[in-house]
Amino acid sequence: MVEISDVEDPRVDDFRDLSRADRRPDRPGGRGLVIAEGVVVVERLLASPYPVRALFGVRRRVEELVETSAHLDVPAYVASAEVMAQVVGFHLNRGVLAVADRAPAVEPARLIARSRKLAVLEGVGDHENLGALFRNAAALGLDGLLLGAGCSDPLYRRSVRVSMGHVLRVPFAHLDAWPGDLKTLRDNGFRIAALTPRAGSESLRDAGLDRGKVAVLLGSEGPGLTDEAIDAADLAVRIPMSGEVDSLNVATAGAITFHAMSGV
Amino acid sequence: MVEISDVEDPRVDDFRDLSRADRRPDRPGGRGLVIAEGVVVVERLLASPYPVRALFGVRRRVEELVETSAHLDVPAYVASAEVMAQVVGFHLNRGVLAVADRAPAVEPARLIARSRKLAVLEGVGDHENLGALFRNAAALGLDGLLLGAGCSDPLYRRSVRVSMGHVLRVPFAHLDAWPGDLKTLRDNGFRIAALTPRAGSESLRDAGLDRGKVAVLLGSEGPGLTDEAIDAADLAVRIPMSGEVDSLNVATAGAITFHAMSGV
Repeated sequence: MVEISDVEDPRVDDFRDLSRADRRPDRPGGRGLVIAEGVVVVERLLASPYPVRALFGVRRRVEELVETSAHLDVPAYVASAEVMAQVVGFHLNRGVLAVADRAPAVEPARLIARSRKLAVLEGVGDHENLGALFRNAAALGLDGLLLGAGCSDPLYRRSVRVSMGHVLRVPFAHLDAWPGDLKTLRDNGFRIAALTPRAGSESLRDAGLDRGKVAVLLGSEGPGLTDEAIDAADLAVRIPMSGEVDSLNVATAGAITFHAMSGV
Repeated sequence: MVEISDVEDPRVDDFRDLSRADRRPDRPGGRGLVIAEGVVVVERLLASPYPVRALFGVRRRVEELVETSAHLDVPAYVASAEVMAQVVGFHLNRGVLAVADRAPAVEPARLIARSRKLAVLEGVGDHENLGALFRNAAALGLDGLLLGAGCSDPLYRRSVRVSMGHVLRVPFAHLDAWPGDLKTLRDNGFRIAALTPRAGSESLRDAGLDRGKVAVLLGSEGPGLTDEAIDAADLAVRIPMSGEVDSLNVATAGAITFHAMSGV
């Protein structure tokens, strides 16, 4: 444990000004470090394949982590809440952070080959929805997520937090050709179900998504799935809704569907 | 339509400093007006039993509402986005607000007598979770919600917004004696199911909640339902979760359960 008392100390540069968008690799100057906030999420980061660079927190929280993490061979920087707030750029309720480098991307074909239940996302641009989908996928037993066109970066800080760190545990892969890459799923024996309120789609209860290998396509709320994605699926499935309809939030619709897929 | 150009104009006092907690009736000085934000939610407020006092918005949004609302017999104040932001206390993305007085509370016995599927909440203190539960209840066909001990005010601005205005449409009532008032449900032929991960609880899939009159008890994430609430129920039901468990968000667990109750 290394005490940090100088706000300008370069050893905590990885943790500086976190609310600025330039932490994102998709923005100019962005470095794309993976950032975990709070004891539970930091523990998940330490247990993940992501190479952790350092911890930074108030003494009590860092000590908590050092006790539970047997092989913590990274620097742990300790500071007062005030110094932390000045480095990070905002007051941190959760008292501890960790940063990691990205791990090599997972090949879609490898993830598909070892999975039975998958979600495939199209156009999920909202980081909180993306994080919530990973949390729900973890809780309800999905084997992984495939990210199609128009999805945000699930490793962005806000997604990591809303996912409760499950984005660091549930495998995901990016599909490049969209929706052409869905063919890989079919070649591997998956039934592809598009979740859509479109007329003629089958009720979720009757679709038997608990049987066999299934990949469910989920689109963002608002526009929903594109026609191309729906046409590339084997069947269209809907969650029946009452009267005057608002679509459900995409992560909520996902949770209902993942539960139906689980068969338990 | 009345043009407002003076930030101090007393005619828009109902809309002043909305982010201050004193809008809440449970706080000293709180007035507890019902506040709707955005065209869709304001439309739901206009169609609700709540007596609307006034609208306030930028011209384009107010005109949109005046066109769709045939009998709009309340003052509609129009201002620039800058004047609005100064009155309200923050910049308003949605461009229009409405305020209403509260309607008389619904009697639990009346709501129970006319319902078949209900949710009963205990300790749901988070306004966003509360709002999301109303949205999910509306989408998935519940007849209403009963609020037990420790719940927040569902008519607080943030709940109204997250519910997409459905808190203004889905009936709710407060239970005073907790959990004693659950007896009224049983007297009306309801089966009472407590949602809890507790050992020995039945899988949601096997509990047959789609049959007959059912009330599901939901507790806040974290502590969950109290033992008293679980003991007062007829059966305990769980959503099976995989491996290393985080409980689902209460609104998400609610959505999965409401879907199972709907039977469609």
